[in-house]
Amino acid sequence: MTTDTTWHYENFERAGSAIGYRITRKLDEVQSPFQFIEIYESTDWGNLMLIDGAMMLTTRDNFLYHEMMSHPALFTHANPKNVVIIGGGDCGTLREVLKHKGVEKAVQCDIDEQVTRMAEKWFPELCDSNNDPRAELLFDDGIAYMANCAPGSVDIVIVDSTDPVGPAEGLFNKAFYESCFKALKDDGILVQQSESPLVLLDLIKEMRGEMGKAGFTTFKTLPFPQPCYPTGWWSATLARKAGGFTFREADARAKLFDSKYYSADIHQGALVAPPFVAAALGE
Amino acid sequence: MTTDTTWHYENFERAGSAIGYRITRKLDEVQSPFQFIEIYESTDWGNLMLIDGAMMLTTRDNFLYHEMMSHPALFTHANPKNVVIIGGGDCGTLREVLKHKGVEKAVQCDIDEQVTRMAEKWFPELCDSNNDPRAELLFDDGIAYMANCAPGSVDIVIVDSTDPVGPAEGLFNKAFYESCFKALKDDGILVQQSESPLVLLDLIKEMRGEMGKAGFTTFKTLPFPQPCYPTGWWSATLARKAGGFTFREADARAKLFDSKYYSADIHQGALVAPPFVAAALGE
Repeated sequence: MTTDTTWHYENFERAGSAIGYRITRKLDEVQSPFQFIEIYESTDWGNLMLIDGAMMLTTRDNFLYHEMMSHPALFTHANPKNVVIIGGGDCGTLREVLKHKGVEKAVQCDIDEQVTRMAEKWFPELCDSNNDPRAELLFDDGIAYMANCAPGSVDIVIVDSTDPVGPAEGLFNKAFYESCFKALKDDGILVQQSESPLVLLDLIKEMRGEMGKAGFTTFKTLPFPQPCYPTGWWSATLARKAGGFTFREADARAKLFDSKYYSADIHQGALVAPPFVAAALGE
Repeated sequence: MTTDTTWHYENFERAGSAIGYRITRKLDEVQSPFQFIEIYESTDWGNLMLIDGAMMLTTRDNFLYHEMMSHPALFTHANPKNVVIIGGGDCGTLREVLKHKGVEKAVQCDIDEQVTRMAEKWFPELCDSNNDPRAELLFDDGIAYMANCAPGSVDIVIVDSTDPVGPAEGLFNKAFYESCFKALKDDGILVQQSESPLVLLDLIKEMRGEMGKAGFTTFKTLPFPQPCYPTGWWSATLARKAGGFTFREADARAKLFDSKYYSADIHQGALVAPPFVAAALGE
């Protein structure tokens, strides 16, 4: 290993800001049928995965995103048994979901098998639960998967996708959300990564608008820190057909698994939007 | 104004990460006796102030830092009347402090008058309260100011400094904290910006250690998003001679001024450290 280092920067055109990492070398790369995947080694953040030049995750900080994309929804639903993850090929969300012993089945449907192969190789800790008998890994089109899901069969759909450009564009519109609405039971929950609450509030509003057109009536956007994404401040938006977002706080406090960022108190705190976010979202 | 843009990156050596902004032009610069101050215009973040190449604030996101450096302490102290701000030359913290009508006097002591002159010119909104009769702006050595403060005369000391290198290095050690301890009343509160809770936990522990050697016995580190600082996730550490950090929640809920990020609920949420932070800090 060389001790030479270089800085890799990613410019976020929509935000007018950039984030960079000090890297030591490129570890791997593959051009899949869908996208170009690169793995870098960094001095302080472990390994980095980039897809089409965009930072997807680092060894060091991915726990923030994966925990907040899963546990708030799983501790809000009364009894989640069937979970579908659309995207999520790095398997980190799947691992968190399967920490809930009540989950009987978790399907991960990512269009790009190479993302999972790279995760197995360079982020093996995220793939700890891939052989769990409750896990089903599909490499297929998430839009088609949701459209073909049996109506009323799913408790939670987690859309763990890249940004709404390229392969993931179709995961942010009314047609896709209608499929989710149909597949979810009446008390089901849809979770969507929803970008930065500081600079991309318009996108969150637009996303909620599309979810609303598909029939969802209640929404909650939970912010959390995520250093490797634009502004370092990210969010997950939860949507339901009806009902609120009171969570199973006692269960969350008594949870039998470890988490690094998520806790019942963090969950409680994330439920309350800062004034400027609440105002923008009309809460 | 030209429509050409360029990207300005700042590498954070200790964190191994970088943050950048798309800028349109340099608006101003001055070499003061202490440091080199630059002002840039950005496409999405308003104006930027850099000191010795390090990002200090942007028009768009400084409210996060200024609100969280002031309101949590002011709503924790039972009746804060005398507040001292060490550093804080951009006057944003002073403005937030003076929103509290019970404050009778707020001294801002920054060693570098040029920081305030640049703020008046390029961030005038932060200087709204500079002519408040309760405000006293000093341009002097904050270490000497605290050392010479009348014992037991101050309710809250806010150390709104740059990082612990260069002019601000002396604001992060036992000797300085001893001066703060002496100047504070028994129920006083010390507030110090305490870097990123994700990558600089060692610094927070070290800082608390120095505060402890100076006599402070209780500590609380409040995290908050701050996109323009390393990792986009920052913190303020509060220290007291004795007693806890229960805040005047009813007063915070009934506050008579606007804030964009701070609220009683945000305050409540920030009091609870995520599990990995609590573990590292031994909370």
